[in-house]
Amino acid sequence: MKFSIERAALLKAVAQAQSVVERRNTIPILANVLIEADGNDVMFRATDLDIEVVDKAPAMVERGGSTTVSAVTLHEIVRKLPDGAMVTLADDGTAGRLSVEAGRSSFNLATLPKEDFPVMASSEYTSNFSAPAPTLRRLFDKSKFAISTEETRYYLNGVYMHVTDSEEGRVLRCVATDGHRLARIDAALPEGAEEMPGVIVPRKTVGELRKLLDDDDMEIAVSVSETKVRFATPQITLTSKVIDGTFPDYSRVIPMGNTRRLEVDASEFAKAVDRVATVSSERSRAVKLSLDEDRLILSVNAPDSGAAEEELAVAYADERLEIGFNAKYLLEIASQVDRENAVFMFNSSGDPTLMREGNDTSAVYVVMPMRV
Amino acid sequence: MKFSIERAALLKAVAQAQSVVERRNTIPILANVLIEADGNDVMFRATDLDIEVVDKAPAMVERGGSTTVSAVTLHEIVRKLPDGAMVTLADDGTAGRLSVEAGRSSFNLATLPKEDFPVMASSEYTSNFSAPAPTLRRLFDKSKFAISTEETRYYLNGVYMHVTDSEEGRVLRCVATDGHRLARIDAALPEGAEEMPGVIVPRKTVGELRKLLDDDDMEIAVSVSETKVRFATPQITLTSKVIDGTFPDYSRVIPMGNTRRLEVDASEFAKAVDRVATVSSERSRAVKLSLDEDRLILSVNAPDSGAAEEELAVAYADERLEIGFNAKYLLEIASQVDRENAVFMFNSSGDPTLMREGNDTSAVYVVMPMRV
Repeated sequence: MKFSIERAALLKAVAQAQSVVERRNTIPILANVLIEADGNDVMFRATDLDIEVVDKAPAMVERGGSTTVSAVTLHEIVRKLPDGAMVTLADDGTAGRLSVEAGRSSFNLATLPKEDFPVMASSEYTSNFSAPAPTLRRLFDKSKFAISTEETRYYLNGVYMHVTDSEEGRVLRCVATDGHRLARIDAALPEGAEEMPGVIVPRKTVGELRKLLDDDDMEIAVSVSETKVRFATPQITLTSKVIDGTFPDYSRVIPMGNTRRLEVDASEFAKAVDRVATVSSERSRAVKLSLDEDRLILSVNAPDSGAAEEELAVAYADERLEIGFNAKYLLEIASQVDRENAVFMFNSSGDPTLMREGNDTSAVYVVMPMRV
Repeated sequence: MKFSIERAALLKAVAQAQSVVERRNTIPILANVLIEADGNDVMFRATDLDIEVVDKAPAMVERGGSTTVSAVTLHEIVRKLPDGAMVTLADDGTAGRLSVEAGRSSFNLATLPKEDFPVMASSEYTSNFSAPAPTLRRLFDKSKFAISTEETRYYLNGVYMHVTDSEEGRVLRCVATDGHRLARIDAALPEGAEEMPGVIVPRKTVGELRKLLDDDDMEIAVSVSETKVRFATPQITLTSKVIDGTFPDYSRVIPMGNTRRLEVDASEFAKAVDRVATVSSERSRAVKLSLDEDRLILSVNAPDSGAAEEELAVAYADERLEIGFNAKYLLEIASQVDRENAVFMFNSSGDPTLMREGNDTSAVYVVMPMRV
């Protein structure tokens, strides 16, 4: 194998590969990236056995072939090479070595046999469709904060992507929850997605997927089966197992009958929550919301360290209400609002509260109250 | 006590105070900042018993007095208040409480009696002089990387500031070493510093001092005694105990007879060292320098992971030499060079090597070689 490639193209391909690789590996080959040169392209493949990413980069291939080297070391080397450099990678004749040359730098890296590299079995996908990058970005960006980190509830450790009916008709929906809060985000159903099975996309996959979604003009090819999901651009293919479990019936959790409506500037609200929470050093800081006509008082009382209170002018026309929330949850939910005011719908101080952006029901959040 | 103060002025004063406060304290009052309002000024004082910082800020004092509150909490609150806010701090009538009000936010913080706050005893200083901020900045910035972190060699855990003779006459000198490398930085002797006793300024003090030195036009008042050192601007006074120990006779370590001279672009050199070191994952990565006429080859050989080599065009006219160094030490030393080429003076591969910037002897570095 021998090929030359522009440093920027190599860096991009290797960066995605090394990010999938787990830092602590008991299986040495999993620390490596599989490099396959053929025709006018080189493929860089990395896996942690659950996720596989394949990056394709154009290169001048002098001699086809393949090998595997440490993804982290190769990434570090390429990162440190000068911008604009042309990099040549080659089997250097010595068994088990890959040479990397650029200008006056030359490196010689230990390899492992390509035969040992676990390539993910290809699958039959039951559903194939494409969606614009901004659509997928919104679905996952606005839901992922609510993913549970509790390993015992493994079926909550991801985003549940599925097709369902909403008030607006059939939609592609992402839901995540950790039992304390929930995010439910809808998008118009892409053509061809009607029969898609519902899948739980693992947290790490959501993170890796995010890197494919930065380009606003990109169409992402999505393929889904009962056990796997694949997201692809012309350069990058990300394949991931999905979580083998049943996502709970979240619809029961979303309160439909809440009638007490609070409308507030989301950014002002978030800043005020952040400020009043300062006086408590506990991890689960409770903030009390006291609602009265067009007035919201946020308060925190930490007997040892102090107390804080802040008043906000809001739109509220219902009867007096006092309700407490975890400050962190309120902050995270408020920070999802980017265009309009945040609208909270309360029932009583013991019931789950609903939050949405203006009257837009395509992104809905639920948060459980705390006793204060 | 009651006073109003502009948020920016309060933030600056409290930021410096909370940075001196240790995060883990067994003595509760040490987590607090002592606030003293008097006349048209408010003083913010914090200490870890070794360092004391006093920030003076202009304020509208309605009622003089003093109290102590958590430095970290007060800093967090002020940081989160909107820019331009006017903040009012007052004993709120309740015993043991300080109220902090700004706009529609109000906080109520637990206090501790000001009598319990350990104010550092004032000292007689044997030497008082003033030096421009950029001079002190250079002395400490260029030497601090070499401070030892080994607690058993406590007398190396700081920068040794003293007055001595150099080739250029009497100088104010800062020296730091950890036994593997050494930095020796000189500055013209400020008037009044002639009789200054040599003191070892602790690492943390060097870090806190750095914040006083950003303003190029500032003159810093320096006071030194056998046991303490004080740096002051009109707003901030930083007082610190010095390390009670004897700094070793560093002059023996500085090689005077090295004759093999290598001149190299410091930035190119540092980048090349960084690149070749990539192939080794060990903490103490050895880089081999192979010198021949006007040619330097940097190489690293890590049997398990690979090898790297890079050639640099340099100025070198002596006989062949191979010498190894810890990559981290070479990088840190090379990054001290900011104006000219780095000049290395070698003797043999077993002897300490000297590095300086061009022919400037006011900043000299020594690094011990490693067997490669």
